[in-house]
Amino acid sequence: MSTNFEFQVQARCDRTQARVGIFSTPHGQIETPRFMPVGTLANVKTLTPAQLKVAGAQMILANTYHLHLQPGEQIVAGAGGLHRFMAWPGPILTDSGGFQVFSLSEIRTIDETGVTFRSPHDGTMIHLTPERSIQIQNQLGADVIMAFDECPPYPASREDVLKATDRTYRWLKRCMTAHQRPDQALFGIVQGGVYPDLRAEAAQQLAQLDLPGYAIGGVSVGEPVALIEKIVQVTTPWLPETKPRYLMGVGTPREMAQAIAAGIDLFDCVIPTRLARHGAVLVGGARWNLKNAQFREDFQPLDQACPCYTCQNFSRAYLSHLVRAKELLAYTLLSIHNVTELIGLTQKIRQAILGGYFYEEFVCRDWGKLNPEETLDRAES
Amino acid sequence: MSTNFEFQVQARCDRTQARVGIFSTPHGQIETPRFMPVGTLANVKTLTPAQLKVAGAQMILANTYHLHLQPGEQIVAGAGGLHRFMAWPGPILTDSGGFQVFSLSEIRTIDETGVTFRSPHDGTMIHLTPERSIQIQNQLGADVIMAFDECPPYPASREDVLKATDRTYRWLKRCMTAHQRPDQALFGIVQGGVYPDLRAEAAQQLAQLDLPGYAIGGVSVGEPVALIEKIVQVTTPWLPETKPRYLMGVGTPREMAQAIAAGIDLFDCVIPTRLARHGAVLVGGARWNLKNAQFREDFQPLDQACPCYTCQNFSRAYLSHLVRAKELLAYTLLSIHNVTELIGLTQKIRQAILGGYFYEEFVCRDWGKLNPEETLDRAES
Repeated sequence: MSTNFEFQVQARCDRTQARVGIFSTPHGQIETPRFMPVGTLANVKTLTPAQLKVAGAQMILANTYHLHLQPGEQIVAGAGGLHRFMAWPGPILTDSGGFQVFSLSEIRTIDETGVTFRSPHDGTMIHLTPERSIQIQNQLGADVIMAFDECPPYPASREDVLKATDRTYRWLKRCMTAHQRPDQALFGIVQGGVYPDLRAEAAQQLAQLDLPGYAIGGVSVGEPVALIEKIVQVTTPWLPETKPRYLMGVGTPREMAQAIAAGIDLFDCVIPTRLARHGAVLVGGARWNLKNAQFREDFQPLDQACPCYTCQNFSRAYLSHLVRAKELLAYTLLSIHNVTELIGLTQKIRQAILGGYFYEEFVCRDWGKLNPEETLDRAES
Repeated sequence: MSTNFEFQVQARCDRTQARVGIFSTPHGQIETPRFMPVGTLANVKTLTPAQLKVAGAQMILANTYHLHLQPGEQIVAGAGGLHRFMAWPGPILTDSGGFQVFSLSEIRTIDETGVTFRSPHDGTMIHLTPERSIQIQNQLGADVIMAFDECPPYPASREDVLKATDRTYRWLKRCMTAHQRPDQALFGIVQGGVYPDLRAEAAQQLAQLDLPGYAIGGVSVGEPVALIEKIVQVTTPWLPETKPRYLMGVGTPREMAQAIAAGIDLFDCVIPTRLARHGAVLVGGARWNLKNAQFREDFQPLDQACPCYTCQNFSRAYLSHLVRAKELLAYTLLSIHNVTELIGLTQKIRQAILGGYFYEEFVCRDWGKLNPEETLDRAES
């Protein structure tokens, strides 16, 4: 691990595995636990960097698969790297493209070398390998880059998941060899589907590699949401205490609280911006659709206690009007609120761990009835 | 005219009719000449009030026709009026709906009482009259409200334009009688199509009424753009020197410079936000389409000299990427630049008049070849 990166655990919860930490990167620090907004195509949909910063964003994501397809990593590198290209001077993390290749592409072949798929832009065949993903990520220049993994679908047989998990491990070692930049931290990704023993075994294997950080992948791929907590609980005990832990693609309030209790530090999810584009907001753990008639003449802010620009300036009635009129400003204003809400939740949890009331306030909270059929979907649409 | 409103001419150009003024309203002052961004549905498309303020906006527009259809003036009034509803604490002007009824609706009848048209939302029949337009505008609560006028199309016969111009005058008097709020200034609108004598006569009639401000309407309705300057030149001499003059629906650089030289103070146009939504920007009077290949690897800002957030933070390559990817943030960033550009042009012209170099710099400027077929289109789409 480069000296550019450091993770300090500052405090621990005495009733759960939750911890408070500071993750230092070349472009700044991340106070954990922390929600990270997703900027797939080198922008968090509808939000300027200035708005993101006010919303409390510290590290944001971008995506190797999408940026390789457009505008191409050469253009990002030509601009001086992702930070300058998208004018985000703080920490950035790039996903490896593994998840997206498996979830978004028309795949032609998967073999030990990598994945061949058809570009959804121009139909050309693209061969993405662990080495290629790392090369692209080295060119993009994020602070944290992710290993190229094979992400099995849900449902998948134990045998198929085992094969993907083993391949993910072999690909990780190739990623480590290919990785060139000491100013970028390469995180490994634990796969293993919904099989506790495969998750535990994969986590133990990865822990041996002394990586600067670890992620749990292959969740929010269609499995019942109730399984997420279990996957996290069987995996985190095997990950090093001294390294940041990142649960990929999860950012709903209940699941973040549960995962933090199991020892997770970082989260990402497209949900705040995607909900916004559907006219929906997160308020205190609930989801409201602003097209509902009840909001037409409701002149209160979304949330009286929320410090965001949207809640400080606009009423539910106004936001409902913009949503109904399909005005693009609606998506900006709702995204500002939703991103602030999710980052704010992780900030509040951080304070609760420090203050010794995390278990009472967030683990014992009634998060509402869980629909056993409910699933989360990571893809931005 | 209420004491809430005052227009002070501070300086005049000695070679043209251009003047510099301050128009005071209950919600603040407007330094003229000034471009006013259009917020049809109680928002300037893709821009927050904070972004508009930084772009230099002083007075912004909203639209009676659109706001009556949705969300309805009762909801705006329930929110405490337009300023609070849309969180714009500065001056606001509402157009009367006259232009929109004639350009956007399926009209059923026009008679002396008013216009009956079918709502494009729910198909119901709506009867809009001078009195109804003023009632709605009184409820919306803008600082400046506009008379309900009959806006003839282009081309139209002299006889038809004469009828519309005379009716506009009779309707204006009904508007004056209906108008209830001394904290709102009612502006009259000069019609007369492309007929100089009708324009002059209408202007003289209106000038007698000692209104707090005067607008030239019925331009940018499909006539060759070259006619706009002539219409303005034959109309403004008949309008009172001591009142603000507003050229409706015009906001292109050349036409604004020409109109200011003829004595116009205020402009509005949807062009900055509409161009943005088509991936186009205004730079130094030129229009660029950011989809053009030349911008893909151009790492300069749109305009090195532009103070806007977009030019201070992003390259042409990045903006081109966002436009190609159809990311909504593109439309925000391009709108920020385009609005800043047009307001900035009127600010520069103001300085030039004060500095005594307006004629040399803006009237004698080569604005590029005028395509005689070129027309402007006011409607936001």
